[in-house]
Amino acid sequence: MYKLISIMMITLFASMLPSEASAQQKVDKVVLAIHGGAGTILKSKMTPEKEEAYITVLTKALQTGYETLQAGKSSLDAVEQTIHVLEDSPLFNAGKGAVFTHNGKNELDASIVDGRTLEAGAVAGVTVVRNPISAARAVMEKSEHVMLVGKGAEDFAKAQGLQLVTPDYFWTQERWDALQNLLKRENDKVELDHDAETTIVDKRPKDEKFGTVGCVALDQQGNLAAGTSTGGMTNKKYGRVGDSPIIGAGTYANNANVAVSCTGWGEFFIRAMAAYDVAARMQYQGSTVEQAAQGVIDQIGKMGGDGGLIALDKDGRVAMPFNTEGMYRGTVSEKGEINVEIYR
Amino acid sequence: MYKLISIMMITLFASMLPSEASAQQKVDKVVLAIHGGAGTILKSKMTPEKEEAYITVLTKALQTGYETLQAGKSSLDAVEQTIHVLEDSPLFNAGKGAVFTHNGKNELDASIVDGRTLEAGAVAGVTVVRNPISAARAVMEKSEHVMLVGKGAEDFAKAQGLQLVTPDYFWTQERWDALQNLLKRENDKVELDHDAETTIVDKRPKDEKFGTVGCVALDQQGNLAAGTSTGGMTNKKYGRVGDSPIIGAGTYANNANVAVSCTGWGEFFIRAMAAYDVAARMQYQGSTVEQAAQGVIDQIGKMGGDGGLIALDKDGRVAMPFNTEGMYRGTVSEKGEINVEIYR
Repeated sequence: MYKLISIMMITLFASMLPSEASAQQKVDKVVLAIHGGAGTILKSKMTPEKEEAYITVLTKALQTGYETLQAGKSSLDAVEQTIHVLEDSPLFNAGKGAVFTHNGKNELDASIVDGRTLEAGAVAGVTVVRNPISAARAVMEKSEHVMLVGKGAEDFAKAQGLQLVTPDYFWTQERWDALQNLLKRENDKVELDHDAETTIVDKRPKDEKFGTVGCVALDQQGNLAAGTSTGGMTNKKYGRVGDSPIIGAGTYANNANVAVSCTGWGEFFIRAMAAYDVAARMQYQGSTVEQAAQGVIDQIGKMGGDGGLIALDKDGRVAMPFNTEGMYRGTVSEKGEINVEIYR
Repeated sequence: MYKLISIMMITLFASMLPSEASAQQKVDKVVLAIHGGAGTILKSKMTPEKEEAYITVLTKALQTGYETLQAGKSSLDAVEQTIHVLEDSPLFNAGKGAVFTHNGKNELDASIVDGRTLEAGAVAGVTVVRNPISAARAVMEKSEHVMLVGKGAEDFAKAQGLQLVTPDYFWTQERWDALQNLLKRENDKVELDHDAETTIVDKRPKDEKFGTVGCVALDQQGNLAAGTSTGGMTNKKYGRVGDSPIIGAGTYANNANVAVSCTGWGEFFIRAMAAYDVAARMQYQGSTVEQAAQGVIDQIGKMGGDGGLIALDKDGRVAMPFNTEGMYRGTVSEKGEINVEIYR
């Protein structure tokens, strides 16, 4: 409890700082950063209990990642273990807490990139894999492929001995209610507008938050890794795939410069090649991680999209820009100092 | 027939030129370029009849694209119409001539990007859509999404009134034999090696050619567009998705610099963000289209991958580098001059 209060004090302190510069950048090298999604996250709508619940899980995830790195394990291990904590929590739109599709199903996506080898793995549209980030890692390490989708990805995960669950594992009251509310609104809309049946009425409601989770890590060998996991968008249809399982869009890592994980309105992050573009700006323009990451979020804003990203460079400098009201995020430094933030 | 001979003479002339510089770059502005896949395409293994068949279809595709542009239509229209010709031919691994998956099915992928708006659309794993490139365009123009996969993508294509076929439309003797040969070889391999069942024996045979098709175009309004369509890899398993439907990997376009379509060993093109990286090198480094395109193919070669790409810049300069034995490719200039090449 004392730890939690001290974290909240750091958060409070950080939120009083001017500009985007995060407190921990002035302290010491960051070895791991996470996000739990960006969106309309307003302090005025948050209860102290809910805030504490989020901070507790984010802190647990950071501690898990830190301990993994401290044990001398790889950044890939740290990313995977950290994301397990977030996937296993019902609070985030990934794993257990995944949102529902239009058809009342949970279809999960994830991807992972190894900055040392530039190898990558991704799964999309899986419904029975408890931890999609581990399926993505298995695709990277145990197949010749980068991306597997749907039933095929599930068959692969099964063949790899990954933990499977029945689809009802992903059922949560809050997500179910969110779908019902959206379906009600959509029906209202169709009734009002008399849209042609062939037009897809699937605009993202403006007050929806994106709970995608992600992690970037730098291990003792100087290897970067990044991972992202999501349940996609509430009410998604037609086998929609967002940016999270797309290498270069939602996730990217290269030891030469940076590891990146994105969250937000996926279509814009795909069109902007967001994760890879952070690396490209650093590689080709000589931008710092802050300049590159902010430049990408500005570009997405110009295109009409919103969201955020976390980027950790090879020297342990972190940037976590977003153009939404808030983004669940946190870092842990080389000395184990944890920082968690939610609001702008 | 006279036309065909004249084209073959141009080809012959071009193949005698030193280095990668294509003849048409010295003539006039290119408005449209195509590829029909890169791979082990050796003149020694080609019959005159087969060569003529390829040249005929490539020429028809270029003429179709050119007429579309001459009619004042958009580069998107030209890309779509040109790719229809290639998709409808059994010669290329896209549409009608798609290769078979491990399970004896044809699962098709395609994507398209509008360089004017940076909007994009993609479908993956569709089995009943005659022209996947049109499904990709419909996703871009008629949905809020960028990428739809599997059954959902098919439902969407159906709702959009696109032409559907029964899966047997895609059955061709040559592709079926290719699968049977590969399955036989794979079974031999398993018998010899006693591989663990959880290891994926899915290495690309070294003599397989990649018949993915693609098109890049520049219209009279200065708008660039790019599209790619494929049947993927023979014997692919587990819902594997390659680079063709991945925006930024297989396909990219931006009026500010370049339109790109890739072909080759898809996993490497995804990991290298190949199509977008051509644009990034031009945008951030000030590279020419030739430098940027060659740089990306060199990078893929360094990673151990192979294939090629076509890139058309906003001024009508084209680059078509590849690191395989051959790549079916062609261009048409502003004055209607057609050039078709196959070998290195």
